[in-house]
Amino acid sequence: MPGLHRTKDIPKNISSFYSAFTQELASAFQSKQVQQPLMANPDPEMSGGGEQKAAQGENTEAGKSAVHTCQQKAKAWLLLLLSYISGDMEVFAEWMKKQFFLLQLLDWVLRGAAQVMFVNNPLSGLVIFAGLILQNRWWALNGFVGTLFATISALILQQSRGAIAAGLYGYNGILVGLLMAVFSNAGDWYWWLLLPNIVMSMTCPIVSSALASINSRWDLPVFTLPFNILVCLHMVATGHYNHHFPQVLIQPRTELANITWAEVNVAKLFTAVPVGIGQVYGCDNPWTGGIFMVALFISSPITCAHATIGSAVGMVSGLALAAPFEAIYFGLWGYNCVLACIAIGGMFYALTWQVHLLAITCAFFCAYLGSAIANVMSTFGLPACTWPFCLSALTFLLFTTETNTIFKLPLANVAYPERNLRFFWKLRKKEKLEREEKERDEEKWREKEQELLGNDKEVLRMERMDGKGKGDGMEGKEINKMMIQEEEMMEVALGEVSSMAENV
Amino acid sequence: MPGLHRTKDIPKNISSFYSAFTQELASAFQSKQVQQPLMANPDPEMSGGGEQKAAQGENTEAGKSAVHTCQQKAKAWLLLLLSYISGDMEVFAEWMKKQFFLLQLLDWVLRGAAQVMFVNNPLSGLVIFAGLILQNRWWALNGFVGTLFATISALILQQSRGAIAAGLYGYNGILVGLLMAVFSNAGDWYWWLLLPNIVMSMTCPIVSSALASINSRWDLPVFTLPFNILVCLHMVATGHYNHHFPQVLIQPRTELANITWAEVNVAKLFTAVPVGIGQVYGCDNPWTGGIFMVALFISSPITCAHATIGSAVGMVSGLALAAPFEAIYFGLWGYNCVLACIAIGGMFYALTWQVHLLAITCAFFCAYLGSAIANVMSTFGLPACTWPFCLSALTFLLFTTETNTIFKLPLANVAYPERNLRFFWKLRKKEKLEREEKERDEEKWREKEQELLGNDKEVLRMERMDGKGKGDGMEGKEINKMMIQEEEMMEVALGEVSSMAENV
Amino acid sequence: MPGLHRTKDIPKNISSFYSAFTQELASAFQSKQVQQPLMANPDPEMSGGGEQKAAQGENTEAGKSAVHTCQQKAKAWLLLLLSYISGDMEVFAEWMKKQFFLLQLLDWVLRGAAQVMFVNNPLSGLVIFAGLILQNRWWALNGFVGTLFATISALILQQSRGAIAAGLYGYNGILVGLLMAVFSNAGDWYWWLLLPNIVMSMTCPIVSSALASINSRWDLPVFTLPFNILVCLHMVATGHYNHHFPQVLIQPRTELANITWAEVNVAKLFTAVPVGIGQVYGCDNPWTGGIFMVALFISSPITCAHATIGSAVGMVSGLALAAPFEAIYFGLWGYNCVLACIAIGGMFYALTWQVHLLAITCAFFCAYLGSAIANVMSTFGLPACTWPFCLSALTFLLFTTETNTIFKLPLANVAYPERNLRFFWKLRKKEKLEREEKERDEEKWREKEQELLGNDKEVLRMERMDGKGKGDGMEGKEINKMMIQEEEMMEVALGEVSSMAENV
Repeated sequence: MPGLHRTKDIPKNISSFYSAFTQELASAFQSKQVQQPLMANPDPEMSGGGEQKAAQGENTEAGKSAVHTCQQKAKAWLLLLLSYISGDMEVFAEWMKKQFFLLQLLDWVLRGAAQVMFVNNPLSGLVIFAGLILQNRWWALNGFVGTLFATISALILQQSRGAIAAGLYGYNGILVGLLMAVFSNAGDWYWWLLLPNIVMSMTCPIVSSALASINSRWDLPVFTLPFNILVCLHMVATGHYNHHFPQVLIQPRTELANITWAEVNVAKLFTAVPVGIGQVYGCDNPWTGGIFMVALFISSPITCAHATIGSAVGMVSGLALAAPFEAIYFGLWGYNCVLACIAIGGMFYALTWQVHLLAITCAFFCAYLGSAIANVMSTFGLPACTWPFCLSALTFLLFTTETNTIFKLPLANVAYPERNLRFFWKLRKKEKLEREEKERDEEKWREKEQELLGNDKEVLRMERMDGKGKGDGMEGKEINKMMIQEEEMMEVALGEVSSMAENV
Repeated sequence: MPGLHRTKDIPKNISSFYSAFTQELASAFQSKQVQQPLMANPDPEMSGGGEQKAAQGENTEAGKSAVHTCQQKAKAWLLLLLSYISGDMEVFAEWMKKQFFLLQLLDWVLRGAAQVMFVNNPLSGLVIFAGLILQNRWWALNGFVGTLFATISALILQQSRGAIAAGLYGYNGILVGLLMAVFSNAGDWYWWLLLPNIVMSMTCPIVSSALASINSRWDLPVFTLPFNILVCLHMVATGHYNHHFPQVLIQPRTELANITWAEVNVAKLFTAVPVGIGQVYGCDNPWTGGIFMVALFISSPITCAHATIGSAVGMVSGLALAAPFEAIYFGLWGYNCVLACIAIGGMFYALTWQVHLLAITCAFFCAYLGSAIANVMSTFGLPACTWPFCLSALTFLLFTTETNTIFKLPLANVAYPERNLRFFWKLRKKEKLEREEKERDEEKWREKEQELLGNDKEVLRMERMDGKGKGDGMEGKEINKMMIQEEEMMEVALGEVSSMAENV
Repeated sequence: MPGLHRTKDIPKNISSFYSAFTQELASAFQSKQVQQPLMANPDPEMSGGGEQKAAQGENTEAGKSAVHTCQQKAKAWLLLLLSYISGDMEVFAEWMKKQFFLLQLLDWVLRGAAQVMFVNNPLSGLVIFAGLILQNRWWALNGFVGTLFATISALILQQSRGAIAAGLYGYNGILVGLLMAVFSNAGDWYWWLLLPNIVMSMTCPIVSSALASINSRWDLPVFTLPFNILVCLHMVATGHYNHHFPQVLIQPRTELANITWAEVNVAKLFTAVPVGIGQVYGCDNPWTGGIFMVALFISSPITCAHATIGSAVGMVSGLALAAPFEAIYFGLWGYNCVLACIAIGGMFYALTWQVHLLAITCAFFCAYLGSAIANVMSTFGLPACTWPFCLSALTFLLFTTETNTIFKLPLANVAYPERNLRFFWKLRKKEKLEREEKERDEEKWREKEQELLGNDKEVLRMERMDGKGKGDGMEGKEINKMMIQEEEMMEVALGEVSSMAENV
């Protein structure tokens, strides 16, 4: 769900580490010695940053010796496979561009389903739909209809193709569809509900686009604000006492909840963690929540970890604020924190340990805010939706500080935590190199100056000043330059991989 | 009501074609040959773009032959009359500038009354006041006081003279005055009410100016937001249980409305359309609504059509969402949609059929939003006011798309739908001409290149690139240039017409 | 509390009038003739602008004659003393920079306590804490803890050092701490309350920074918005029916208040004025309110005057809107108006009589808004906090007008009313001088032209145009230039004062 302005040309500069083991792979495939791909499965935790290090390590080794063991080849084979299904599956997206339109649409819908959790990955989307079907088939249907029509509406309204292809117009649709079914009081399989569902999900792109016009001024994404607005709109426009589309009755708390600490069920508190993740899609089945965790893990382990931390933080906050145990078990304290923790923890900020702490702070703030908003909204018979997440994440993204360890990524460069991290590292490295270079230049000039001390010192000083000026100028343009260079590297890498594939 | 930044210099270049046949007319009147002005009445639909074409047609004709039939003169006479009273009555406004201050103030107040419906026309304002008096004389008085003091306050606070003269500081005043009277529980002719009425309407320009500071960042108008804020402020600050200024009691719905479809009164549903238009000013009399439609028609038929469509859409939405029939008959579902449909359908967007569809979509969205906001506001004992219109229209104005058939006018160029449309057409024509010219230039260069193939080809290519560069540069500045050129064209046209008139 | 963007380098250019009497003082101290410093106390009203005039007057005198009477020396000695403790105590702040960290922190905390009233003065802060202790020691403790942790949190989060040192991160903390204690239903000395108190006050800098990112786009301060958000958050998240942190029960009015005008207590109405000032910090003790007035007077008499006017306006508004007398006596109608009147009356606008009227208008608007917001918030069991002040002051700061007597200071130049006024005067003087200079240049050129009439007129005209161009260019940069020059003057002045001090 990273902002509506991530256009298709940006994600191109994907995982340049691919080129790292292409030559090695070429030989591995040629010698047909790949024997135990599934058994030699490397720790999946490595799929993010791990792969790269491994690949780089092998690469340098490969340069030294031509001896390849069978195990190395298997590992390489697996890394390739992982590179294809993890992250944002860019290679797959590229391949999809040449396919039949309906197949493309399905890809966009699946990506849209996963983008609720900031994951731009059709496989994750598929797993998520599986989880939804396990929970409730009527809800899953409504979710699918919502995503589909939101995407179609975005196409009709001629929104940015890149954003549509990344699922950025679908994720509000799936939430609108799902939650309208969840909060309907008419029971499952009340087919008339599809009508407002379609209308509301088709309105999503309009509201998204309008909000993006505002938020883009601060380089902020719209998050799930369109969903919040539209579901609240539908629920409060109809209400509990409606003939056509009645909503479940939600009323404000008016007496002391009966909380006895002896009655707390520790096992249920633990299941509240996956349930909290499931509640992002309105699901209270812990297995569904577990399936969603798998979906997150496929694309980005960092995201998965932060989702779990967020849900746990929410649960703890609920206990601290003396919430009724049922609400905690039901995951109502978790889902906003899950989203807030993912958003801050590596998605829109580059993950450092300071950012990690900030993400946890944000999750606590979000839990607090969640309780407040739930109480306020209940006055109008409304659920809290994901307002707490949106407001807390926006607050923490607007926050500025003078430290350089908290680096907010430009919205156009947001991808997934692992890639964001790599972007951040490269930027830092570049900066460091340039600083060193400048220092070295300074050093040289000083030496030269001392040599030529006598005759033409004045001329030299002027030259030196020019040299300095250029160095300073470079700093300003470094981000743009870096991006261009990364893209070039990428194209080279992709070319190598494809040529290798042909050899196989 | 188009934005506060339409300053006086912009509307100046209005329908300069009016002057096109004034001298001609002068002679026509002198020769006393005007015989059947009312019978030869041209379709009023032509009052917008039609007139101009007619005028242009005559103009070219006049250049060719000096033979003028009696009918043509009558037609011209009528067109002149129409041109004086339709649109924004610019000629009248110019004439007013030299009059007594109190007369000017009356003009501004009348324009302010009409600006509620985006109409900058004192005659429409007069008709609207007639409608208000038909409804309730006490309300009409309050409305007048509100408009008057809002305008005076704007003068005291030294706001833009152009905006004041266009009634842009009055329309919130009339609504504040009217609705404070409508929602007062103290009964009619409770003279103390004029006190908060004056205070609140004098606060209007401050709130308007403050909101304009924010909205202008997105080139958005403030709509009726100041009215909404101030009336809600007054109502909730005093409330139903107040000794001085009690408000009518508004409470949230707490049980199922009794809706029997057999009881629906189709005739009443149809009268709900004019009543919906009347409810923009808080009036439930269908005749008042009808009078308002006439007022709209005088200034701009497109506005009138969209008002009717909007009201109908609101009525249908009410039925779809199972609203109590009384609320629908009472026009409560219509008035917001009326305003939203006018605003989107030709006022702030140039009217194309895509925009027309967008306006209808916006009206539906507005109806939905209206129901939602009414339910939320009733919790605080407040009516929905025109919040739904403001929010939905702002959303649809913030919406961006990649198609060029949905063209949002720069706020400074917003006038009335017919003129906006002409502005849009000219812009398109200009763009087309420039594109063709560029293509022709390219063609020429290509030919020349082939001729000179041998010797000095290199030199020529450089020249050509310079030519291209200039062509590209033009695109960026096209709007400004267009406006300047439009003015120039206008002056030339005026010169020709007047010389022609002398010939006659 | 003036905005978060006032960095440390700006307040440096303090009271350049110091230099005005340094030489005079030097001699006064050398001759050891200072005898009656306290008796010759000049009217404290002069501490603001008065001093300067006096100083300037003496300065010119001093230039003429070397005869210094004993009285003059005493006066100068007192002015120096006043200059040290009034305003923003810049000299003290400079001296503090070299002190022990904990002492600095205490300075920041005291300034933070005073910044609630826009006063950047540790002495005022100390007096305010005295007032709080008089009211309730538990509240005072909570306030201190809030300020302390908000400041520490800002340090941890690496916010601008200048803003922290001015107490701009503390004032929300003290309000959060105080009001959480005031609205807690758990009674005084419920030590667990310090936990959410610390959490919430540590969140203050995050919310402040986020809001500043938005408000800075319109060059607006964040006021007490972070406090409003966080206290409402805490209160509504826990609510009246909470086991850990119960809040006092606040319910909407549902019946006519029993108001008998005969029962009005005029004496109590008068005490409502200081009580209103005390209610800014949640205190209902009139003596505490009186102490706060003293604290304001120390730093800025203009601020003190506007606080009193604001409180009186609020009281009158309460009577006009038929509020229950108890609420008026309790100061609930006053505190928002106090803050709004201070903010508009000289703090963010340069004080002219138009601005003074605007401040009173704003106070009335604020009272109205206060009643409205209190009614709305009571639906959620919340108090109005200082939302009315924030919203009304922001509205009046966003308001634009074409008159030049209402001058909004750039946020970076906001200090205290007296200094703001001096800034405004200098700006005006500068503008006038430049205008005159330009006119004189024009005159010269005209004369020269007439002299050289014949031969080289054409050349001269070109030169003249160049001259003009430069003159125009200057106008654009005048503010920046002025600031730089003021800084230079300041450094010279400070240098003189310190050298003089060494002589003593």
